[in-house]
Amino acid sequence: MEIVTKITKVTITPVAFASPPLLTAAGVREPYVLRAVVEVETDAGLTGLGETYGDEFHLSALDVAAAAVEGADVYRTEEIYYRIRSATAAGPASAPAPAPAPVPATAMPPGATAVVGGPAKSGLAADRAFSPIEVACLDIQGQAAGRPLGDLLGGPVRDEIRFAACLSYKWAAHPGGAGGKVAAPDPWGPALGPDSLVAQAKAMIDGYGFIAMRLKGGIFPPEEEIAAVHALRDAFPYHPLRLDPNAAWTPATAIHAARELDGVLEYLEDPAPGLGGLAEVAHAVATPLASSRRVVELAHIPPAVSTSAVRVILADHHYWGGLRRSMTLAGVCEMFGLGLSMHSSPHLGISMAALLHLAGAIPNLTYACDTHWPWKTEDVVNEPFFFADGALDVPSAPGLGVTLDRDALARLHEQYLACGIRNRDDTGYLRRIDPSYEWHEARW
Amino acid sequence: MEIVTKITKVTITPVAFASPPLLTAAGVREPYVLRAVVEVETDAGLTGLGETYGDEFHLSALDVAAAAVEGADVYRTEEIYYRIRSATAAGPASAPAPAPAPVPATAMPPGATAVVGGPAKSGLAADRAFSPIEVACLDIQGQAAGRPLGDLLGGPVRDEIRFAACLSYKWAAHPGGAGGKVAAPDPWGPALGPDSLVAQAKAMIDGYGFIAMRLKGGIFPPEEEIAAVHALRDAFPYHPLRLDPNAAWTPATAIHAARELDGVLEYLEDPAPGLGGLAEVAHAVATPLASSRRVVELAHIPPAVSTSAVRVILADHHYWGGLRRSMTLAGVCEMFGLGLSMHSSPHLGISMAALLHLAGAIPNLTYACDTHWPWKTEDVVNEPFFFADGALDVPSAPGLGVTLDRDALARLHEQYLACGIRNRDDTGYLRRIDPSYEWHEARW
Repeated sequence: MEIVTKITKVTITPVAFASPPLLTAAGVREPYVLRAVVEVETDAGLTGLGETYGDEFHLSALDVAAAAVEGADVYRTEEIYYRIRSATAAGPASAPAPAPAPVPATAMPPGATAVVGGPAKSGLAADRAFSPIEVACLDIQGQAAGRPLGDLLGGPVRDEIRFAACLSYKWAAHPGGAGGKVAAPDPWGPALGPDSLVAQAKAMIDGYGFIAMRLKGGIFPPEEEIAAVHALRDAFPYHPLRLDPNAAWTPATAIHAARELDGVLEYLEDPAPGLGGLAEVAHAVATPLASSRRVVELAHIPPAVSTSAVRVILADHHYWGGLRRSMTLAGVCEMFGLGLSMHSSPHLGISMAALLHLAGAIPNLTYACDTHWPWKTEDVVNEPFFFADGALDVPSAPGLGVTLDRDALARLHEQYLACGIRNRDDTGYLRRIDPSYEWHEARW
Repeated sequence: MEIVTKITKVTITPVAFASPPLLTAAGVREPYVLRAVVEVETDAGLTGLGETYGDEFHLSALDVAAAAVEGADVYRTEEIYYRIRSATAAGPASAPAPAPAPVPATAMPPGATAVVGGPAKSGLAADRAFSPIEVACLDIQGQAAGRPLGDLLGGPVRDEIRFAACLSYKWAAHPGGAGGKVAAPDPWGPALGPDSLVAQAKAMIDGYGFIAMRLKGGIFPPEEEIAAVHALRDAFPYHPLRLDPNAAWTPATAIHAARELDGVLEYLEDPAPGLGGLAEVAHAVATPLASSRRVVELAHIPPAVSTSAVRVILADHHYWGGLRRSMTLAGVCEMFGLGLSMHSSPHLGISMAALLHLAGAIPNLTYACDTHWPWKTEDVVNEPFFFADGALDVPSAPGLGVTLDRDALARLHEQYLACGIRNRDDTGYLRRIDPSYEWHEARW
């Protein structure tokens, strides 16, 4: 009795969910974050879910991928990968025109920026388009087996995943739309200096139980952010802290900052641009470095290791090519003796379920995973995840363990259609408010 | 509906199968090869099969592992790995005494020689004891899903696996037992020089369809083996050739030989002992090097790459820690741009099924797999594999796709009990026939 389960249909639904006005190294988060919900249907009647970024580059690659995988067997995910790689390399018949303006560095990790706005041209595009489809295929396989998805990766080695809070500088409210009207403030209030960040951290800890915390930096002059980290350390002496200046510093500034924060940070993420810059910083300071900008595919790891630039790798199945390739990444980290943490963009419950299964199955997950969770107040799943004690349980139901709330999906798709945002553009958003703002790397 | 499938019993049956008197760099193959058949039973009624080496070291580690995994869920193979790692690190209550004599280098890859004869003490011991149990667990998972095992590794990317013939210097017959009586000669006849090796190669090609061929060398003076390879090349101009002198050469000899064979070999396996020796050879010659002696766990790869010692990795799920870890190995090879081939010891149909599923699922398998197959004439499975066109199909039945022939298992177990061999000892066997023989590495 061989069960054949062929893909009959892949549906991609772009959605938008509300985001607070979080400041980033490239500007300000717009009022909505874009995501794509992927549904894979099979002739066996089972449907699987996946989720990824919802900008035009990813939607275009997903369209190509969806056509390429029709008729494929959901158990043959490597064949699916190669179908997608061939199809995205060829590109769609009518490729969208290249993006007219440079893309801010934070719009997506660096490997992808070269192809933004155009059809998928690289292995990376295949990795990104494959990821949500692989998740959906494994969701189906898990459902068919009556086992949680993580069991297809070797099974969980832990049942609870710890997360690190994402502390963010932010405005009280979005400036609003027509007429410059200011939108209603969110409950978090503004955070523009050490005191308000400490208050935000307290709310994160009290409300969600986080222990580790990561500050999104690269926004204010380095001395202000160093002071903020010291204030957090003083207020929370036993909470692991991370700082991500998002390549907004020169290597010299980064070395100065790392020395000022010596012994305070568990790791420092992307303190300077480029692998050379990271290596320069790494050789001068004791704090381990991580990078979600320069180490985002397997080919990046050997040079990162040989230059001793990073000691912590940030997994993220959305761009490391799905869940099984992320398990390979974990094996590579073990081989090199690298630390392993998990990067997180704003996302919904489908991606959260996938990353919980992954985090549960990785033996050498050496840090709490990053999450944007409390900043996200909407979802498309019937079983939204709620943090208690800074952790979430690995889902134990068959497959991914989440199901679609069709009303919520329709609402967030309407929100996508209505919001007018088609690509993340923190810089453009801030420039509409402050035309003098200019983004550039290594600002300080 | 979550299906829980707990291990209720692990049965380890040592078996012995007949082997021709193949000459090796450490002596001569004894009349029997030892293997261990592993059966994993579950409370769900499904049973899985695995197979590995049957010497005392492996049987001892398997006994420890079998006790450690009782009650474990067959879907939680990483938990099973950690149970085995803990248990083998602790060792059994009554450890066998250390082996009294040095072990020839070919008895098993180098990482393991330090613990031969004693209880399992290293990560490698865990990898080796885990491997057949993981195969059995995946066999069960595949059966439960109604899908071939390879689908649990991402599914096959090819349906047929090509193999390389193992050409061997050999005697006409084993010298026999009591009274020095010579056993009946096998149909292959003796092979002690170029002409008889060419005849052996012709029989391998005509009978089994092999294309690539590998000569087990390190036995006769290098000039004789170089002449044999040239004779093979002259007789078979279009057949890829490999040579494995099994570290019987000094680096200087290996460099001389590689230059004599420039352009003739697709790769040269273990031409000299030690990573330093391999690197010295690699830097001097154009032929890619491989090693099944110095690169047998993930931690060996970074130094092998940084010294440029090897360009081809030899996978073997028996010592690389099972099937999923072998998939990780494949990812590592892709990351480093290394070639990937597959090592093979003499084994039975259970291991053949496992390696076919693995070879089917590895995208970057860049060479035909090694096999000792035609030298093996007995088996324990109901569906023995027969070569046609030098290739075998990836099994398509659920799970491993093979079942135990209980009569054959009983017969080969009786053979194990009766043969008196408990550890592979090519050197001791040859010394009983020729007391002047002494084994040492880098003989020439």
